[in-house]
Amino acid sequence: MEIRNPRTGKFDFSIQPVDANGVRSRTISLRASQPGWMAKGIEQRVRVLQQWHTLIEDYSTDLLESLIDDTGRKTESEKELNYVLRAIDSWCEIAKKILREPESLSTSIPVLKLQNHYEPFPLVGVISGWCFPFAHLMKEIIPALLAGSAVIAKPSCVTPRFVRTLNHTIHRTRGLREVLSLVEGTDDILEPLCSNADFVCYNGTAAEARQVSDIAHKLFKPSSIQHGLKNTVIVTETADLENASSAILLGGFWNAGQSSSSIERVYVHRNVYHLFLSRLVGKANLIRLAYPTTESGQIGPIIAEPQINIINGQLWEALENGAKLLTGIGQCEKWEGGYYCRPTIITNVKPSMKILNEETLAPILPVMSYQDTEEICEWVNGITQAHSGAIFSKTANEAIALGDKLSIPYLSINDIALEEVLQVGQHPQMTPETLEFEGTFSNYKKFFRKKTFIINTHKPFGTGWIKS
Amino acid sequence: MEIRNPRTGKFDFSIQPVDANGVRSRTISLRASQPGWMAKGIEQRVRVLQQWHTLIEDYSTDLLESLIDDTGRKTESEKELNYVLRAIDSWCEIAKKILREPESLSTSIPVLKLQNHYEPFPLVGVISGWCFPFAHLMKEIIPALLAGSAVIAKPSCVTPRFVRTLNHTIHRTRGLREVLSLVEGTDDILEPLCSNADFVCYNGTAAEARQVSDIAHKLFKPSSIQHGLKNTVIVTETADLENASSAILLGGFWNAGQSSSSIERVYVHRNVYHLFLSRLVGKANLIRLAYPTTESGQIGPIIAEPQINIINGQLWEALENGAKLLTGIGQCEKWEGGYYCRPTIITNVKPSMKILNEETLAPILPVMSYQDTEEICEWVNGITQAHSGAIFSKTANEAIALGDKLSIPYLSINDIALEEVLQVGQHPQMTPETLEFEGTFSNYKKFFRKKTFIINTHKPFGTGWIKS
Repeated sequence: MEIRNPRTGKFDFSIQPVDANGVRSRTISLRASQPGWMAKGIEQRVRVLQQWHTLIEDYSTDLLESLIDDTGRKTESEKELNYVLRAIDSWCEIAKKILREPESLSTSIPVLKLQNHYEPFPLVGVISGWCFPFAHLMKEIIPALLAGSAVIAKPSCVTPRFVRTLNHTIHRTRGLREVLSLVEGTDDILEPLCSNADFVCYNGTAAEARQVSDIAHKLFKPSSIQHGLKNTVIVTETADLENASSAILLGGFWNAGQSSSSIERVYVHRNVYHLFLSRLVGKANLIRLAYPTTESGQIGPIIAEPQINIINGQLWEALENGAKLLTGIGQCEKWEGGYYCRPTIITNVKPSMKILNEETLAPILPVMSYQDTEEICEWVNGITQAHSGAIFSKTANEAIALGDKLSIPYLSINDIALEEVLQVGQHPQMTPETLEFEGTFSNYKKFFRKKTFIINTHKPFGTGWIKS
Repeated sequence: MEIRNPRTGKFDFSIQPVDANGVRSRTISLRASQPGWMAKGIEQRVRVLQQWHTLIEDYSTDLLESLIDDTGRKTESEKELNYVLRAIDSWCEIAKKILREPESLSTSIPVLKLQNHYEPFPLVGVISGWCFPFAHLMKEIIPALLAGSAVIAKPSCVTPRFVRTLNHTIHRTRGLREVLSLVEGTDDILEPLCSNADFVCYNGTAAEARQVSDIAHKLFKPSSIQHGLKNTVIVTETADLENASSAILLGGFWNAGQSSSSIERVYVHRNVYHLFLSRLVGKANLIRLAYPTTESGQIGPIIAEPQINIINGQLWEALENGAKLLTGIGQCEKWEGGYYCRPTIITNVKPSMKILNEETLAPILPVMSYQDTEEICEWVNGITQAHSGAIFSKTANEAIALGDKLSIPYLSINDIALEEVLQVGQHPQMTPETLEFEGTFSNYKKFFRKKTFIINTHKPFGTGWIKS
């Protein structure tokens, strides 16, 4: 299978896709090794991951180079690599704190005793997208391995170059290759991968998330499916426009908007709409394409080829129907075989347009003005639901009062994507108290299945049903 | 729509099915009333439910009569009614203890503060099956209403007679009819009901559960789907056979096996297999059909007509392929238009047979002998997964050691279906400590959606991205 280079458009790399039988045979050997991995205990598993960390560092030049070839962008690739190294460190600390010991409990009926046992799913299937090919892959692999699971993982075949180097590090880490296998393949192996695993994880785009989630549902597989969708920002009348425009600039345009936390809708109170827009446009005009070199600017190429048509289609529909372009040229531009989308700010968009409802994954910010709380709530709650969002306003209480009326589950206040910032690997060591409330606990706990025993210490309740 | 009477086979009742438009118009008025219901606060909502309790008691003779007509069985109907009355009392106590207040928390990054808010889903859709038509319906309606949700509920149209009386009680309870609507209809309204609700609950059979779960998945609706499947019992060599046979008798044959907690597979250690079987057969022979009157015996008619073919088909396949009948006649028998299945114990069943893999919902116990731990684990883990199970053995530790190797999430020890016994309404008042561990907490919590606010009290992290 030939792989396209996002900067040159050339098919300069190839992979040997594994088929369904290949997946099955790997899962058999992974399953055979998992009890031994589990029996090692957390301290030894931590040691294996620490050795892996060392090897990833040793190979970091190669890994970084291939990640840059995969994605066409440099600073984001450096951040990905650093994130992975920090995440291994953090998870190794955290996993030692979150031991899933059996719980013995009394119940509301004195003769009944309850015990909860936790065991890791023997085999976890990890599938990941191309937005952050290395980070999204490792985000699940690391805690799953520490929990005691074996892992079969399918990185995106849009960005497979780094996998070869990563495989070197896996093969050189003693005890790791028996319980971790990376498979390269097309969508054809999604179903065999899910059906042979006990638990399925996906991180990446909304479209692929839906595909994996449909398969997991059909197969009755427990799963953890993570993606973003139409993340939405609201700038109220009282917001600090300087801070808001800087944060939204980053949220909309970093990684060329190709991220599950990218902002894809901006609503601004009409009293500050023009002031906000002029600041945002001013800052957007300072952003450059990362062409001819990866260091020429901030906006790398479109990573996944099918995105080019999606982006052009959404822009075309909007502009044909009256939307107004404040920055950008209204379509992707081609440079030496690579496609780039300039930072694009558009106004006069209508709620029915694709660009406000479907996943865009590009550096495009539709900006709308709103009149009052009632109107903004009606708009935000009446459109494709955002998976996360942000509110900028003078006080947190004002933002929270508004946020309580919106159907958005995660809301950052006076910043963007803070739920990502609180992720493992992004920040200093966590305390046991913060583990649970920041979601880290559940991101580890998900790899364990719970078994509940209820013991009747007296005689069975129903013995008197039939009398002889 | 004409409704069949399970004892006479006559179509002696009819309902006016609501269509999709009817569902939609009801959800509009329920949604309009929900904010007022929420604003009442928990104390006032408790008072409304207490008044409803009084009215259900006032109408209990009518309710019981129609439930008996719906299901053809009497003592189980009495238990259902009592369960509902106790469940209202218990939930009213519990809901006052589990207030879902906002939580303010610090994070691992000092400038970031976190707040979790909880709000009830505005409109909950409840769908329930025919096994326990009243209990399974009310099990979700009561906590949903107390949480502050409005509820649209579709009782099974196999057993709709009690709904008319229940509607009288709803209409006479001040403030209830505005936030609770029971709709009668066919499967055609499952999709409009799910799509117009914010959260979907189902309790009943595995087949219907799958149908509702598919719809909820397609519509991206959060849901709580509860059903049983091939609940499995293991009797070890050291078990008290007298207690085990009594408990399994009840688990297999009560409510004519038409329950999500009914036992549908029994594995017995070969050293005690014949001793156990003779006790079980002896007790089964004391059980009588509840014919000609509901008080003539313990086994009522098959409630849902399509079950007759399913049961006969599974028995026929087993007997054709070498299974041996120890009690029963190997098929349903017809008495005055009603179909009954005698307590049926069969042996010599094979792992591939439908009767060991598909939902049966009849008083049929396939009993198999096993040789050792390895064999029983291989069998139980290699077949359609049981949703719950039980182990009988001398000590709890022996049972837990075996249970840890089985892929069954809930295991009762030296009794059956203890997870049902620990349900709200089945037992004395619960303490705050037991609420969480018995699952009651999560059965209430599920009606709330969580909103997470993360506040950056300093300036946004990414302000330095682009320098002018």
